[in-house]
Amino acid sequence: MLFGTKAIDPVAAASDMANPAFLAASMLVERAPDIVEAINDMPAALAAAVLLQMPAEQAIEVLDQPGLDREPELIALMPRAAAASLLAGVSADRVADIFHHVKEPCCSELLDLLDADTRVNIQHLLAYPAGTAGSIMTTEFASVPSTYTVQQTLDYIRHVENSRETVYAIYVLNPLTDMLVQSITLRRLIMGDPDAPVLSVARPGKLISVQPLLHREDVARLISKYDLLAVPVVDQGRIIGIVTVDDVIDAIVQEDTEDAQKFGGMAAINQPYMEIGFWQMMTKRGGWLCALFLSEMLTASAMQGYEGELEKAIVLTLFIPLIMSSGGNSGSQATSLLIRALALRQLQLKDWWRVALREIPTGLALGAMLGLVGIVRITVWQYFGFYDYGEYWPLIALTVCAALIGIVMFGSLTGSMLPFILQRIGFDAASASAPFVATLVDVTGLVIYFSVASIILRGTLL
Amino acid sequence: MLFGTKAIDPVAAASDMANPAFLAASMLVERAPDIVEAINDMPAALAAAVLLQMPAEQAIEVLDQPGLDREPELIALMPRAAAASLLAGVSADRVADIFHHVKEPCCSELLDLLDADTRVNIQHLLAYPAGTAGSIMTTEFASVPSTYTVQQTLDYIRHVENSRETVYAIYVLNPLTDMLVQSITLRRLIMGDPDAPVLSVARPGKLISVQPLLHREDVARLISKYDLLAVPVVDQGRIIGIVTVDDVIDAIVQEDTEDAQKFGGMAAINQPYMEIGFWQMMTKRGGWLCALFLSEMLTASAMQGYEGELEKAIVLTLFIPLIMSSGGNSGSQATSLLIRALALRQLQLKDWWRVALREIPTGLALGAMLGLVGIVRITVWQYFGFYDYGEYWPLIALTVCAALIGIVMFGSLTGSMLPFILQRIGFDAASASAPFVATLVDVTGLVIYFSVASIILRGTLL
Repeated sequence: MLFGTKAIDPVAAASDMANPAFLAASMLVERAPDIVEAINDMPAALAAAVLLQMPAEQAIEVLDQPGLDREPELIALMPRAAAASLLAGVSADRVADIFHHVKEPCCSELLDLLDADTRVNIQHLLAYPAGTAGSIMTTEFASVPSTYTVQQTLDYIRHVENSRETVYAIYVLNPLTDMLVQSITLRRLIMGDPDAPVLSVARPGKLISVQPLLHREDVARLISKYDLLAVPVVDQGRIIGIVTVDDVIDAIVQEDTEDAQKFGGMAAINQPYMEIGFWQMMTKRGGWLCALFLSEMLTASAMQGYEGELEKAIVLTLFIPLIMSSGGNSGSQATSLLIRALALRQLQLKDWWRVALREIPTGLALGAMLGLVGIVRITVWQYFGFYDYGEYWPLIALTVCAALIGIVMFGSLTGSMLPFILQRIGFDAASASAPFVATLVDVTGLVIYFSVASIILRGTLL
Repeated sequence: MLFGTKAIDPVAAASDMANPAFLAASMLVERAPDIVEAINDMPAALAAAVLLQMPAEQAIEVLDQPGLDREPELIALMPRAAAASLLAGVSADRVADIFHHVKEPCCSELLDLLDADTRVNIQHLLAYPAGTAGSIMTTEFASVPSTYTVQQTLDYIRHVENSRETVYAIYVLNPLTDMLVQSITLRRLIMGDPDAPVLSVARPGKLISVQPLLHREDVARLISKYDLLAVPVVDQGRIIGIVTVDDVIDAIVQEDTEDAQKFGGMAAINQPYMEIGFWQMMTKRGGWLCALFLSEMLTASAMQGYEGELEKAIVLTLFIPLIMSSGGNSGSQATSLLIRALALRQLQLKDWWRVALREIPTGLALGAMLGLVGIVRITVWQYFGFYDYGEYWPLIALTVCAALIGIVMFGSLTGSMLPFILQRIGFDAASASAPFVATLVDVTGLVIYFSVASIILRGTLL
């Protein structure tokens, strides 16, 4: 959503709802994440007024929280000068995130009110595509020249502690070229001999860093693999920002939410459920639903092709939903397994044939299991007279069993290969959704079913 | 998997494969997570031998990595004394994790070789159920009495830095009762006046802590909400361990993997894909597949009930897969949205009716959209002679459209309510899988379709 509401005086506007000054005072001892929850539950005008009534330091801390909803709207509701002075204190990555969603002319007006350094900084961050390391990094990191001693570095850290997102990772630069030389940790720094050069406390081993255009998912994987608190973002040897572990947790949660929604067969929506608008819901869900519907129409065409068989043996139609859904279910299982295995880098593209070699026997065995259940069902119903499948019922049972083996195997294979195929042709493997696999398997499932039937029932029913 | 292999001399056993001493030497400068990857690719006997050839400090660091596979097997392959001396250095939470999977008598033999303190510590950790804060916490944290000054605390930190998982969070205890009073951070500690009491650098606001039996998912949410590096686990006022941010990232990734697999319609498997055994695959997938198959059998029963209609109007069967899959797809979308919304605590159980009030109009609109596409399809096919639906084709088109509206609405409603219902009756909302929803919707979908048909086509086809 884009917000460009004309600036009003929210204190006056909200006066008849609740007293913002009173509310702000009552929050003085609360922690920022708890204040965020209270503010998220307020009407926007009241929320903006409460923020303006808080001590500036506290309001800045609240605006710095990733959990705060409607932030661009709240900023747009504040008088420009007040908004700009608050934003000047908020960390640059967060401000860039807000500016992404503030509409013109509010956006330019606010940018103009910021000091030149902050403005350039934010415009720089705004240039990185969403989802990259550059777009989630913060530029407020601690760095010292490699000529510093341990004591000098500690003094510097004490001096800048307040204005840095983290001081647990400190970056050592070449004083001549400004190139990143090494990263050190505060815990090792306080252990060091005060007069020794700062690099004496560096951990041996290669420096871990990322490129600004690396995807946030890969940044998360790196931070998690090496148990880092922050990773430097390096462009042509120079450090331009850092991504911290808490940004990465937010990124993981967002990515997994998007993947879960895509697996459910819709476009990803990164918003709390109750805030998704009706039209947004229609476009995010309707698009895929229509695409799947159009593909699934092939089943109608396939069945038209088997009209003759259907008329002769209407009993075959009874098992169509049962058999088709089994193919979709086994495919959905295989897809969910493989999407995660690819996302966690347990498998690579070149491993597709090893997966296929596992899924084929698995699918055959699972299909045989269901086939047996199917035979038992038909036999019991026939035997106890629940339903009469006609004189050829053993052949019908055999048809159902054989079709299930073929379809479940085909479902497992299709479901496991789809993520590989999508990744190979440049899509996200996580675009392989359960409904997508089910649709792919349905048409083939019908063909398998009627082909098996025409072989087994030839000369009897067909 | 449980490992209880008899201790062999892995150095001798591996001598003809590759030289472990040489491999260990070549890894001296590598970072532990990279060594882990190399070791994961080796045969178990060789991997154990390489670990024994490394400097003890490095081997301990490698064993401390969560990414190391087959750890219990590697430990079981080492001579008991060597294994015990390595385990004595590994962090307690990791050792407890290993012991969970080591078979008797190896497990007891190793426990007996550890010193009494470590042994009691580990037995204590082993008692917490999997997935709780107690089971993922580490007991290696930094704590000081509240009578300490800032300088005394810093001296203590310098002294214990090497043996603590993190020293960025320091816990202040009441010196008389040992109760947890407050937590402070190293960054604020180094800013403090050296002679001031340690509590002078504490952040105002309430202390965040968790109970040992809290689920790891909730611990992760808390750490992420408050941007903590660690959270203390408190039992009756005393701190018994801490959960650090890197443990929490691993927990989030594992939970999301399990949820993705469950949504795909199978029991969760927390193992790399290629390491899942054939029988394990059969049980984890076969169970749900059978359950879904048995439920889906109701569709065959439902269709038997409509046998008369089917014989009179075989043209109706053509659209069965199309219409049923649309209900399943819309349900799958709604379920994926709601599972995440509930998991991220965007919604609570009591919000079910607000969700229902959103899903009903959404489902009706989406169904109408698909219904229109269906009418166009039938009209075009009839008009251009691709297929002849008979003289009543406009009524058939109307039936398909009306059935789609009803079924997509019902699918959206069922898909969105299922996670609430499961959570209400004490299950995990994430157990609501795409195949589960599709199966629920299929039977009702058939009933809706034939009911709509019998109303619209009465007196003509039926």
